[in-house]
Amino acid sequence: MLAEKKLSEFLDDLASDLPAPGGGGAAAVSGAMGACLISMVVRLTLGKKGYEDVWPEMEQVVINSDLLYKTLSSQVEDDAAAFNDVIAALKLPKDDEAQIQIRTQVMQKAFKRAMEVPYSIAQNCMEVLVLALQIVEKANINLISDIGVAAELALAGLESSLLNVRINLPYIKDENLVITTRKQIESLAEAARSNKARILSEVNNKIA
Amino acid sequence: MLAEKKLSEFLDDLASDLPAPGGGGAAAVSGAMGACLISMVVRLTLGKKGYEDVWPEMEQVVINSDLLYKTLSSQVEDDAAAFNDVIAALKLPKDDEAQIQIRTQVMQKAFKRAMEVPYSIAQNCMEVLVLALQIVEKANINLISDIGVAAELALAGLESSLLNVRINLPYIKDENLVITTRKQIESLAEAARSNKARILSEVNNKIA
Repeated sequence: MLAEKKLSEFLDDLASDLPAPGGGGAAAVSGAMGACLISMVVRLTLGKKGYEDVWPEMEQVVINSDLLYKTLSSQVEDDAAAFNDVIAALKLPKDDEAQIQIRTQVMQKAFKRAMEVPYSIAQNCMEVLVLALQIVEKANINLISDIGVAAELALAGLESSLLNVRINLPYIKDENLVITTRKQIESLAEAARSNKARILSEVNNKIA
Repeated sequence: MLAEKKLSEFLDDLASDLPAPGGGGAAAVSGAMGACLISMVVRLTLGKKGYEDVWPEMEQVVINSDLLYKTLSSQVEDDAAAFNDVIAALKLPKDDEAQIQIRTQVMQKAFKRAMEVPYSIAQNCMEVLVLALQIVEKANINLISDIGVAAELALAGLESSLLNVRINLPYIKDENLVITTRKQIESLAEAARSNKARILSEVNNKIA
């Protein structure tokens, strides 16, 4: 499991010419760090005097943010596996018509997966932005910059994941799927950018 | 060393109520991942047929990007140390005039360091954006999305670091330093956003 590597080793692997991890895994780590920071801010709001009114809501938020960072952390592995499946499919033999047909089917399945995994990472990053917006006016004011960082990292994770979705679209033959996906990623990016702008506007109001 | 922790443990610590790591360390990891992706793209350009003309330049780039990711990785620790020094300074006794004077001096030194470390992280993230812009039209076209991800993560690391610089400014009594720093972070943010926009414009041109 990539998440069980030392951080320094993960970075060494990322910088190397190994096929994975790559940009997809880095995007998942960015989103995971965003979710972690939401969990941190909420933990330092729970138990903090003066914030009693929001404790019940914060207890719900931290359940979600903890789940999100663990999911995003495991998606570093999913992205590497999906990429390796594409590489494996490309290496299948294509010596006769039967082999070509099988290779095409396996490749189409692999490219779809290589698109679905970053799309799911992007959706999870959006969830981080939703939580950040939910707590930005309510959480411990001393941690306001960390909410801003969570939003920056979650949006970067989302934008990065959408690049990884788009890079796979030209290889997918199911035109309806391509059209639907293009619409979905456009509206996801728009919603995410708008959320991040609202969060940072609030953060900037509170930081001198 | 935080970079010697497992990635999963680093994330657990980030999500916890421990004083560090926090947003500053997460920003450094984001920038480090950006630098790693530059190294990866360059490694997969060096040796790739058709790119012989840019190999000498790429050999220089990878020296810089490797150094940047290692520096940024070590700054995760620097940021935690700076934050812990602020916490330690705040706990110094203030029972008489002499103690108050010493505490003030130690606190000023700690707050300056807590501002200098994220500023240095931001500068290193800017260097990643400079390298990304340098290679975006020249590197292996198959890795174009990874250059886009590098730019997204480096800018997020930079913006996050600047939030951490700004959060410390109100505590610094040296007004000239505060004024100079505000000007520097404004021009750094402007340059970084402009670089990232140019990189992504090129990336988007090349991705369908």
